[in-house]
Amino acid sequence: MGSTTRRLNIGFIGFGSFAQFLAKTMMKQGHLIRATSRSDYSAHLGPHFFRYEQHLPEHSNHCKLLSVTEVPEDSDLLCTHPMFGPESGKEGWKNLNFMYDRVRVRDEDLCSSFLRIFETEGCKMIEMSCEEHDKLAAQSQFVTHTIGRILSEMQITNTPIDTKGFEKLVQVKESTANDSLDLYIGLFIHNRFAEQQMKNLEGALQRVKGSLEAKMEEEDGRE
Amino acid sequence: MGSTTRRLNIGFIGFGSFAQFLAKTMMKQGHLIRATSRSDYSAHLGPHFFRYEQHLPEHSNHCKLLSVTEVPEDSDLLCTHPMFGPESGKEGWKNLNFMYDRVRVRDEDLCSSFLRIFETEGCKMIEMSCEEHDKLAAQSQFVTHTIGRILSEMQITNTPIDTKGFEKLVQVKESTANDSLDLYIGLFIHNRFAEQQMKNLEGALQRVKGSLEAKMEEEDGRE
Repeated sequence: MGSTTRRLNIGFIGFGSFAQFLAKTMMKQGHLIRATSRSDYSAHLGPHFFRYEQHLPEHSNHCKLLSVTEVPEDSDLLCTHPMFGPESGKEGWKNLNFMYDRVRVRDEDLCSSFLRIFETEGCKMIEMSCEEHDKLAAQSQFVTHTIGRILSEMQITNTPIDTKGFEKLVQVKESTANDSLDLYIGLFIHNRFAEQQMKNLEGALQRVKGSLEAKMEEEDGRE
Repeated sequence: MGSTTRRLNIGFIGFGSFAQFLAKTMMKQGHLIRATSRSDYSAHLGPHFFRYEQHLPEHSNHCKLLSVTEVPEDSDLLCTHPMFGPESGKEGWKNLNFMYDRVRVRDEDLCSSFLRIFETEGCKMIEMSCEEHDKLAAQSQFVTHTIGRILSEMQITNTPIDTKGFEKLVQVKESTANDSLDLYIGLFIHNRFAEQQMKNLEGALQRVKGSLEAKMEEEDGRE
């Protein structure tokens, strides 16, 4: 990785709470930010903000996920996933995981300048294929959001007799409840490994329930 | 609550890892401990340990839960539940929750001397009826153990791209996996509010799954 630090022109497509969270640190580092979004966030970036429909009218009603095949062939392509967000990264990005895949990189200097944004903040840099990322993210991030949403549906809340373990579950519930339903659905629809994890979760619940029922029957037989 | 501190004679029925964990601090405070258990733990307490079957032969094959109605009427009765164990209390008991119910107390001095064991270590002392405890414990502790066992069945494990939330779930899994299946079954069988929580959990999972499936169908219809 090169050592040059340069001022980058960074464009955001979509400028919700996650993009704003990233942009804040990027601007602090001196990079130039432009953003476009369905909603009007011009108050955040002033003249550097463009309304979505003004520039990408063909997608104005439905935001499509970027497909690798749609990126012009002469563009470089670096896929990344910061494994944190406004909640877990509110005290800074030190030791938080940052996954990236150098899918098609010719301008090495540009690529490493972008990665350096996250290195500088102390992120743990993890190079990994998108395929491997999707497998692991289905097992971890998708399961976490699913458990968080289940606990939210159950309306669990702190009690005066919380155990340490229960306190952790309340935190998981609260942190995933802050994320949009769109984000959760995206973790499922756009990751082909997620459906299997949902099946695993259902199967595991049935086995745990079965172990309790078997014991209940045993106890009933004894009485 | 009185201020006298006296040396107590404390007897344990059952001397597994949780009882040993409590006894260690009680002995450190100068109290006398005797214990009886199905397994032989005499190495832990020397002459103060009695084998279960020698003293309670009628229960030698099956440990029954103590029922309030079986306690002799002239005995005082203080029901307690330390909301922690060998794992969450390994760094001390400070700020950990300790629930108690003075079901039938005549010897106030004896009762407060026992409670002082936990006060002295910095526990958060919570007086609560057993009924209220069971309601709250079903919503918190039982749900936590159930989620921990489900995650254990799913064999979730740390990945190189863990989010903070997922790290918490791995901790919940590991801490509940250290507890015996007997303990988990006890949380279900002996708490009449637990069954409803299991139903709530199943219902919540189905609703979360339903929200994903509805979105999938919507996406399919659009293509």
